[in-house]
Amino acid sequence: MSKEITSREQDYSQWYNDLVIKGGLADYSAVRGCMVIKPYGYSLWENMRDALDRKFKDTGHVNAYFPLFVPKSLFEAEEKNAEGFAKECAVVTHYRLKSDPEAKGKLVVDPEARLEEELVVRPTSEAIIWNTYKGWIQSYRDLPILVNQWANVVRWEMRTRLFLRTAEFLWQEGHTAHATKNEAVAEAEQMLHVYADFVENWMALPVIRGIKTESERFAGAEDTYCIEALMQDGKALQAGTSHFLGQNFAKAFDVKFSDKENKLDYVWATSWGVSTRLIGALVMAHSDDDGLILPPKIAPMQVVIVPIYKGEEQKANIDVKVKEIVQSLKSMGISVKYDDSDNQRPGWKFAQYEMQGVPVRIAIGARDLENNVAEVARRDTKEKKSYSLDGLAESVKNLLDDIQLNIYNKALAYRDEHITPADSWDEFVKLLEEKGGFISAHWDGTAETEEKIKELTKATIRCIPINNPQENGTCILTGKPSTQRVLFAKAY
Amino acid sequence: MSKEITSREQDYSQWYNDLVIKGGLADYSAVRGCMVIKPYGYSLWENMRDALDRKFKDTGHVNAYFPLFVPKSLFEAEEKNAEGFAKECAVVTHYRLKSDPEAKGKLVVDPEARLEEELVVRPTSEAIIWNTYKGWIQSYRDLPILVNQWANVVRWEMRTRLFLRTAEFLWQEGHTAHATKNEAVAEAEQMLHVYADFVENWMALPVIRGIKTESERFAGAEDTYCIEALMQDGKALQAGTSHFLGQNFAKAFDVKFSDKENKLDYVWATSWGVSTRLIGALVMAHSDDDGLILPPKIAPMQVVIVPIYKGEEQKANIDVKVKEIVQSLKSMGISVKYDDSDNQRPGWKFAQYEMQGVPVRIAIGARDLENNVAEVARRDTKEKKSYSLDGLAESVKNLLDDIQLNIYNKALAYRDEHITPADSWDEFVKLLEEKGGFISAHWDGTAETEEKIKELTKATIRCIPINNPQENGTCILTGKPSTQRVLFAKAY
Repeated sequence: MSKEITSREQDYSQWYNDLVIKGGLADYSAVRGCMVIKPYGYSLWENMRDALDRKFKDTGHVNAYFPLFVPKSLFEAEEKNAEGFAKECAVVTHYRLKSDPEAKGKLVVDPEARLEEELVVRPTSEAIIWNTYKGWIQSYRDLPILVNQWANVVRWEMRTRLFLRTAEFLWQEGHTAHATKNEAVAEAEQMLHVYADFVENWMALPVIRGIKTESERFAGAEDTYCIEALMQDGKALQAGTSHFLGQNFAKAFDVKFSDKENKLDYVWATSWGVSTRLIGALVMAHSDDDGLILPPKIAPMQVVIVPIYKGEEQKANIDVKVKEIVQSLKSMGISVKYDDSDNQRPGWKFAQYEMQGVPVRIAIGARDLENNVAEVARRDTKEKKSYSLDGLAESVKNLLDDIQLNIYNKALAYRDEHITPADSWDEFVKLLEEKGGFISAHWDGTAETEEKIKELTKATIRCIPINNPQENGTCILTGKPSTQRVLFAKAY
Repeated sequence: MSKEITSREQDYSQWYNDLVIKGGLADYSAVRGCMVIKPYGYSLWENMRDALDRKFKDTGHVNAYFPLFVPKSLFEAEEKNAEGFAKECAVVTHYRLKSDPEAKGKLVVDPEARLEEELVVRPTSEAIIWNTYKGWIQSYRDLPILVNQWANVVRWEMRTRLFLRTAEFLWQEGHTAHATKNEAVAEAEQMLHVYADFVENWMALPVIRGIKTESERFAGAEDTYCIEALMQDGKALQAGTSHFLGQNFAKAFDVKFSDKENKLDYVWATSWGVSTRLIGALVMAHSDDDGLILPPKIAPMQVVIVPIYKGEEQKANIDVKVKEIVQSLKSMGISVKYDDSDNQRPGWKFAQYEMQGVPVRIAIGARDLENNVAEVARRDTKEKKSYSLDGLAESVKNLLDDIQLNIYNKALAYRDEHITPADSWDEFVKLLEEKGGFISAHWDGTAETEEKIKELTKATIRCIPINNPQENGTCILTGKPSTQRVLFAKAY
């Protein structure tokens, strides 16, 4: 099996596609730019969603659901937001098909069923949600509103890639409303840390927490906070964003509240989201040439057990023991599959589960039973060891914790090795070409310079790190004075 | 609060809308026929979804996600299905908006961004899924496929009602593929029973399990199984359907498999779904003129505790005790809210939680504390009793079980009183007008008669019950011979 995967060195991009398709995460579909999330991939998403959802609820948020469609007049109300998304939105113009008079069995759009007002398929839901909040908010007593939505959104991307950039994707979008600016800023920052905590501790992916420059901000935001991760090819990937929206949407939709002194003011807003794109980041950051490597905390299947036997009697003996092991693993909350299907040989199964990134594989043969042991292989390091069957579940639990930590530490070491300062333009270009990763450099603070650097090198400012140390320096491109370094990288 | 609700007698339909809106379940939106599911309503949906999802997984199903859009050429491939949904589908024709040259700040559809092929927003996903399954199925080893999807769908309904009939709704749709007809039929029947079990035991709503007549079948199905519930106004509501699709979709999308003898055959299919419509059924079946009545097993909040005090000292004493109670309730898996907000009086709170259908309300005052008791009110019967604080959590747990059962039994008694045989046309019409409910009557088995009865009375054949007793009789309309009674009703 594993030989079917293109190696990273050969073609990193093809390696990624191979993992996604052959690892059973997703599939192409008949719809341009849309993908099918296969059961194994969806199960991974469910685990991520559930962990995030718990964090949202623990921080006082509730879920709700808003319409898929945004009437054009609402869509265009917040001008910057509309401008940012207008170029990539799917538009519903009709509500009926009818039989094609010229071709039997075919259908055509019924020209008589044209909508009076076109509907945009939501690329993001600020507009429809703030139009709703107008009806929910009169007084400070109605605030804060801390609502999240799990939904699908559509952005008509021209160049798409499985998970990383698809026309339709799944995500969550938090939309909160507050009485004060401070409270809204604190909320946007809180959610940034919630995301960082999730990505680091569940997905085992270290991130840099920062703020976007003006030109990289979300359309309609006053400030965009982000977490940035690093992939194995040295490119950065934006893993989540949290926006302080100021009063922009409240003004666009006329959402005011009366405060304790009965004074009217516009409501302050945030929005924040992560998407199925995170699965792409997960694949790219941890996996190797033999397949996926999934962190135990979110792996759809944490342990797989493969019996090795000749004849029914050996099999029956192994079954009895495995049944016990499965029960004790499950009682510890560990997900486990016993693959005793007889249509494939153990070696084929090993390769298959390696491809799928199952963190721990246990093989048990007749001889093992006699010796009261099992062979335990960890996916991350490929190390194999003989474990006693006594207390096996406990050992496996510890091993899973160890794997989680090891995957994180490996990614962290790589990431830390790939944050490099550059103090001249030549050095900057050379680092970008030869080493990749984040380059920490001085920038004169203008959008023009940022744009120019992007044109010349394809590198963008990923973020200005939170609590960034201030130091005097000169812009690597223009030589103008600068007070802090920012992080540049080529990015997905 | 409660006075704001229209009574059932006054206007049943307005009563329903009042409950949905004022109970905090949903809200109208700016999009024609689409609703906003508010946090309280969404929390109810989450509980329903989670319970159903566990049942799906327990019966071997996995979740996946397929594209929102169906290209027109795929949509029209299965002719009956296409014909059934063509009249009510939202169609995406363009993928970009641009600035309106005639009005600053406005957007128009960019005529240059017309799609080569129109995309239908899924009204149901058989087409896109079977087109995908074609790539997944070669041999009997790839079968069965037991996949479910949680998603939004759009059906452009002309007359909409919150939850019961909306242009966009949330649902799950199972789509399974099998090697034999028997296996597919068994799957369709199994899922009917899974639905019935959920609706009866979680939603406390008794249902009749049956089969639809040909004219009421899902477009593209060979057989549609259904569960039918009865609302308090004597109208029926279809609460879930499960379809045996034969080989119709396999033929439309050319999905064949080779069996163990290496013979090629088309794959057999089922699909099955329930939607947010169930929330409408729940509201209509159980609630009263004071608000919602929610079954404890799916209620977003099972218990609310309201302190009754004068002054901070009393409050502080109550707080200490309530903290203990909350902890012991939570440790038993009971969801509980302590509403000690000081901006509303207890009486207002009581009415509010009554409106929201919280199953159990506990009030604790200073005098209660002295007597080591609390006043416990159940929402279903409005009975109030003094309970000892010793073992209160255990008592509440038992009470919740009792409420669940009582709500079910009440609905069952009403339903059973409203299944009435009719043996003549006059009797049939009279029963429909004066009593409502299900009318068990003979029918000659033709679609013409079924249609005629619908025209004359608005009643439809809800189903032919499973294991229906066979008996000779004559059709109530035509007098032609019949071998079984079927269930008629006016329906939502």
